[in-house]
Amino acid sequence: MPLVFTNISEVYTPMQRITGAALAVKDSRVAWLGSGPNLPDLYRSWPQQDIGNRAVLPGLVDSHTHLVWAGSRVDEYRRRAKGSSYEEILSSGGGIYNTVTATQKASEDELYELARERAKIFLRGGVTTLELKSGYGLEAEHELKMLKVIRRLKETLPQRFVPTLLAHVIPHNWSRQSYLEMFSTELIPEVKRLGLAEAVDVFCDQGAFSLAETKRIFETALEHGLKIKVHAEQLKHSGASKLVAEMGGLSADHLEQSTLDDWQALAKSGTVGTALPGATVILKKPFPKLRAMWDAGVKVAVATDHNPGSSPLYSMFLAMQLAIALGGLSAEEALIAGSKHSAEALAKSDLGTLKPGAKADFIVIEGTDAMLPLYGWGYQPIHAVYIGGNKISAST
Amino acid sequence: MPLVFTNISEVYTPMQRITGAALAVKDSRVAWLGSGPNLPDLYRSWPQQDIGNRAVLPGLVDSHTHLVWAGSRVDEYRRRAKGSSYEEILSSGGGIYNTVTATQKASEDELYELARERAKIFLRGGVTTLELKSGYGLEAEHELKMLKVIRRLKETLPQRFVPTLLAHVIPHNWSRQSYLEMFSTELIPEVKRLGLAEAVDVFCDQGAFSLAETKRIFETALEHGLKIKVHAEQLKHSGASKLVAEMGGLSADHLEQSTLDDWQALAKSGTVGTALPGATVILKKPFPKLRAMWDAGVKVAVATDHNPGSSPLYSMFLAMQLAIALGGLSAEEALIAGSKHSAEALAKSDLGTLKPGAKADFIVIEGTDAMLPLYGWGYQPIHAVYIGGNKISAST
Repeated sequence: MPLVFTNISEVYTPMQRITGAALAVKDSRVAWLGSGPNLPDLYRSWPQQDIGNRAVLPGLVDSHTHLVWAGSRVDEYRRRAKGSSYEEILSSGGGIYNTVTATQKASEDELYELARERAKIFLRGGVTTLELKSGYGLEAEHELKMLKVIRRLKETLPQRFVPTLLAHVIPHNWSRQSYLEMFSTELIPEVKRLGLAEAVDVFCDQGAFSLAETKRIFETALEHGLKIKVHAEQLKHSGASKLVAEMGGLSADHLEQSTLDDWQALAKSGTVGTALPGATVILKKPFPKLRAMWDAGVKVAVATDHNPGSSPLYSMFLAMQLAIALGGLSAEEALIAGSKHSAEALAKSDLGTLKPGAKADFIVIEGTDAMLPLYGWGYQPIHAVYIGGNKISAST
Repeated sequence: MPLVFTNISEVYTPMQRITGAALAVKDSRVAWLGSGPNLPDLYRSWPQQDIGNRAVLPGLVDSHTHLVWAGSRVDEYRRRAKGSSYEEILSSGGGIYNTVTATQKASEDELYELARERAKIFLRGGVTTLELKSGYGLEAEHELKMLKVIRRLKETLPQRFVPTLLAHVIPHNWSRQSYLEMFSTELIPEVKRLGLAEAVDVFCDQGAFSLAETKRIFETALEHGLKIKVHAEQLKHSGASKLVAEMGGLSADHLEQSTLDDWQALAKSGTVGTALPGATVILKKPFPKLRAMWDAGVKVAVATDHNPGSSPLYSMFLAMQLAIALGGLSAEEALIAGSKHSAEALAKSDLGTLKPGAKADFIVIEGTDAMLPLYGWGYQPIHAVYIGGNKISAST
């Protein structure tokens, strides 16, 4: 049913700020958005819904999460707060491997229930689209199980979920050579055949995959028509961001150790550079130089990197606030980074932006100022969330 | 009615971790706390309440807030994110003065309603005690109005509120000399006479009060039997933390620019050193060296500094998480800093700790691990909040 939302105090599209706005929606997409008095006659006969002089923001897009996981790493969090490093814990067989064991043991149903509860928390925080990665299964059977959980989330929840196959670490009982062989010749083709992922991501870093291994996985992914993205320059500088840029990838994520050279490659190819402030702050790494990256022409995105180890972060607004306070973005830029740019990191040009033709995914703020959720730290004043023009209950 | 809470998966007192605990409460105070099987016979006949194998933490104590304010400083937040400094905005007559104008204009009723809504947000975040400062009234009439709002919050809400008279800045229409005279000879005696504050705080920094002025205000406060505390070493090093330590003050707060010399003075006098991570991060100041302060023997506390300008922070757990990630505290230390030490910063030895005789203010965590709310960033898994042994509804 076509509908016009009226009495919007202000909206960020996010590229533009419009005060006293109206928003017309048809077939779950934006038909028109502009200043209320300019609403064309065509839309004036449509049913109206009064937003109550509240502000509106685009639905947030979290373009990097590991939302499907089982087990607990609270003890590891405690240990790291006492000084153990992430790298030490990972190399001694803890960290990711801890979650792998629990996730392999968990059934598809159990993983679904756990991820569903987390997705609801993100919904209450204004996140209408989430990218979700596999990567805690490692064995083909369990990687496919994770991707099936993501498909089930897509089928049953109102949010939009974008699945990614992640090459995370080499399992302990495999040689590097044979795991890479299996991943490339069996897992990627099977995932493609079943339509279970849109992209392939590789954790290219110390303790994970080398640059050469990453390149081989990317080549296979591209051959199968899958997009590529990468965990790059987080713990050590590997050159993965330049590689993914040169291969036409969607995004290079983390970037704590990235340099001007990397940013120029990302800017040139239009590859999104994604900051993951949760992991940066929680692992006490240097904050990526977002101000300089933005000024170098990189499309900077912000995501939560939600995962049980390095980033148990449940709030996109908090991720964006950290990008402002520690990365030097303005509030307006952080908003673009958490909506439009993060949608581009998923190749979804009709998400994360409120323009004619785009999906009508938006947040109604509890207040007249659209920046209130970026202003209030540890408090998200969200009145309602709409996906495809439909109001979504947080108890869904 | 006496009551025994059973089936507590674990509790931090916060000085001690007890698993499989039981907690006996009588007359709103802790009668006994320990391992369930050790529950003395005396308490076994009392009515029991099953906590459902959930974890328990002491109610959090936020020992530094400016919760009573009117107006909006979202635009200033936006400007600062673009590069304007707090000091520039303050010296050009914005910042605090902006809130002063709005707070002077607001009625006692309006201020009460605004503060009440904020206090509820803190309650949902596990904060059972809040210190609240005046300081946006400046004129005696409006300072008293703010303190009366705090008294009304105390009388009407379940949380505990501790009122502080704050010498914040010199009003534009007063000479320094005559404002100090009025503050010391009129306002402090009147506040004491009406019983409207327990302590006097001074913002001793660039753009506010000098060290000599601070000393004079403290002397008057002490003469009137009021306790003293200070905003110290935030923007510039002033020596205020040593001053308040030498004068037997409760706490020195902020401490971004503090030195070993200051810490030794605080440690010697037992004066609490309070970190305010919201203001530090949002104003992009160097994070106080909490690890070194703690190791130098300072009783380190953490508080939100909730205020509309430099720290629109609504979550004690987030303040504690920033103290872990950026200040080097362990999770266990951060918990002590946000409960026991912050209660000591208010001279409330029966708050912020779960021991026989202390007030039975505690949080039931949604999960078996008491550290879950420090682990999950941007998400507070709180099942219930108890004050004086009574379960408090968040809609109160």
